[in-house]
Parts: sequence; C-alpha cells; structure tokens
Amino acid sequence: MGPATETHQPRDLADVDVLDVLQALSDPVRLEMVRQLAAWPAQDGLQCGQMKLPVKKAAASHHLKVLWEAGLVSTEKQGVYKLITLRRDELDERFPGLLDSVLRAAG
Amino acid sequence: MGPATETHQPRDLADVDVLDVLQALSDPVRLEMVRQLAAWPAQDGLQCGQMKLPVKKAAASHHLKVLWEAGLVSTEKQGVYKLITLRRDELDERFPGLLDSVLRAAG
Repeated sequence: MGPATETHQPRDLADVDVLDVLQALSDPVRLEMVRQLAAWPAQDGLQCGQMKLPVKKAAASHHLKVLWEAGLVSTEKQGVYKLITLRRDELDERFPGLLDSVLRAAG
Repeated sequence: MGPATETHQPRDLADVDVLDVLQALSDPVRLEMVRQLAAWPAQDGLQCGQMKLPVKKAAASHHLKVLWEAGLVSTEKQGVYKLITLRRDELDERFPGLLDSVLRAAG
C-alpha cells in the first residue's frame, strides 16, 4: 500500500525570481486565491473547491498551477483531496515584505 | 509663448489598483526601468534614453507608457527632453512597503 499522504514536491524558492511571483500575483483570480489562502489557518490546507472564485473549476485549476509553479503554494494529496497551502513563511524569507504588502493592498 | 515646462497630468493613485501595479512591474524591462529610476536622485528626472535597457527606443517608450498608466512614474517635458520620475513617495503611501520589497528582491 502506498502512503495516504503524498506531497507534490514544491519548487525551491531559491530558484524563483521576483518576476515569477509578480506575474503570478498580477491576475485577479490568482490574487484572490492567495488572499483566501492567507486568511485560512496556516496549519490547515484549503481545497480548491472551497475557495469562492468567479471562475469554473478548470480555470481555477490552471490558476492554481501557475501559483504552484511560481512557488507561492504547496499542495498535499490526502486521500481524494488535494490540500493547498500558501508558503507564507518561506516567501517572507525569500522576498521580505512582498506578500504582506500585496495582501494589505488587496484588502 | 507657452511654458517651457509642461507636466503630463499623472494618474490619481487613489484610482490605481494593486493589480495595475503588479502587472506593470511583472515585466523584466519595466522592472529594470523602475530599478534604474529608483537608483537615480529623486529630485532629478531621468530621460528614457539615459536608461541602459536591452530593448530599442520604441519598445522602451511602450514600457514607459505602461508604467505611466499604472501610476508608477510621472513625466515632465523640459524643452526637448522628457524627464521621468518614479512616484516613490506617493506609491509608498498608497501601497506601503510594496515598491521597497520589490526593489529589494530585484537587487
């Protein structure tokens, strides 16, 4: 039996450029995803379907992939669920103040 | 005789959304323009041609227009020159910490 928990190996933030992060954040749906993830208890993951978004599931999945590729989120598969977490502490270390200032501006 | 100094009315930052700023900054040429403007003495304007950029004049003009439309820069015509200034203080007030964190990350 394989493990019930499987983590999709996240991107090493040392290889992520600030342009990747800015491009990922510069879309209204993705910024809203990050805003909802930031408001969620950090220890719990959020499912994509739990977010309130103005787009259909396929579009949400695409946007989630962009966030993941830019190193903004990590995903963990738990059984049939995929839980998404904002990599807030790591991002704060790599790009001090960036996420906080964007989230503050996004309200 | 008209005035020798003519200011292109800059956009009111109250009407600028953080997404406009993120989109404007999420291009390597525009981020480099902002970086060079930030390194220039604030009281002096910089001419577009004085920036060291990896693109030709027409492309640089386009990128400058995007920055201007996002409220990031103001321009002032002095005789035959157009001097560009980063609206740093106003941006810091509108989006606290954002420009600083981006510039820090951009090195």
